Amino acid sequence: MFEGPLQDLIDEFSRLPGIGPKSAQRIAFYLLKADPEDIDRLCSALGAVRDGVSFCRICNNVSREEVCRVCADSGRDKTTICVVEDAKDIQVIERTGEYSGRYHVLGGALDPLANVGPKDLAISSLLQRIGGVLPDLDGEKAPEVAEVILATDPDTEGEATSSYLARLLKDFPELVVSRLASGMPLGGDLEFVDELTLSRALSGRLTL
Amino acid sequence: MFEGPLQDLIDEFSRLPGIGPKSAQRIAFYLLKADPEDIDRLCSALGAVRDGVSFCRICNNVSREEVCRVCADSGRDKTTICVVEDAKDIQVIERTGEYSGRYHVLGGALDPLANVGPKDLAISSLLQRIGGVLPDLDGEKAPEVAEVILATDPDTEGEATSSYLARLLKDFPELVVSRLASGMPLGGDLEFVDELTLSRALSGRLTL
Repeated sequence: MFEGPLQDLIDEFSRLPGIGPKSAQRIAFYLLKADPEDIDRLCSALGAVRDGVSFCRICNNVSREEVCRVCADSGRDKTTICVVEDAKDIQVIERTGEYSGRYHVLGGALDPLANVGPKDLAISSLLQRIGGVLPDLDGEKAPEVAEVILATDPDTEGEATSSYLARLLKDFPELVVSRLASGMPLGGDLEFVDELTLSRALSGRLTL
Repeated sequence: MFEGPLQDLIDEFSRLPGIGPKSAQRIAFYLLKADPEDIDRLCSALGAVRDGVSFCRICNNVSREEVCRVCADSGRDKTTICVVEDAKDIQVIERTGEYSGRYHVLGGALDPLANVGPKDLAISSLLQRIGGVLPDLDGEKAPEVAEVILATDPDTEGEATSSYLARLLKDFPELVVSRLASGMPLGGDLEFVDELTLSRALSGRLTL
């Protein structure tokens, strides 16, 4: 439609999730008139993320330090691990105020169609944590884990991932493995569930 | 909410038009997993736009060459100029197939609250074109302009801009000055008007 660099920019923005050609065009024209410093800031933020965001050594959450704020918080219950697909799901669960344990970020869900298998997710580190192999803060021995809450998305991939993990975790007979209770609409995305529904789902979780 | 570079990126995306915090977060997490080459391509497209997109010498449209494709098209009627706020409005009018003249891109609309005055818009070059001062393709004398269609947005700023231009253009007694006919919902944005409504508005334009 347009010529040269402007069209390139529209094309690039159109590739991002949730941005259609119309929005991409609007953003490109906005940037055309924007302060060059704003564009530089956006570019350097992109560069910083490309060069690597660091992850918590324990739970795989996005973190500036070696250990994320949740894992470093000594006031939290170290015996419970809530397993989520993405770091952004942590924020949603934190907002309910119903959970005071730690997390484990898988980095996605099993999805054979997209070639995402168990090896692409942070499953082995979860087993190491539960097995007490992974050292905790300041080189301390890993805390004993009493319960694992499977809080993957209530969609096909998330359900499959939870079933897979539940099967693996049968190897730890003492461990209580639970799944977020129903209350969440199936086929949805955990990130967009309202706090109240998520609170209900947390307090009514079912032992598998 | 998050830490370090990821939050910076979310903040930067939230500043763009039409992107809320939730969409910004979704895009940032998408880019976290994206191919570094994709991010590089986005960055270089941003850089190219920051370093300057070139504009048509005649009509101020976005253009890779000195003269844009519309002005360079010898099959078009050079005696009619359609004045629009932004280059993206040209695409919408082109899609109606009702117009075969040239364009003039103002680069915005008069908006005293945002400190946009007549000097910030490409008004003097429009007067030069109509006055026959601006050389045409290959240094030819400017074509005589018989009609100017004012196609600014049908909102407060666009209406004000059209009124202002209509007053200025009274200096050219031979010139027919028209405004897009009603049919477009007031308070809207030209870019989002459907083709049929815009066709009606073009064919039913009123002489001022």
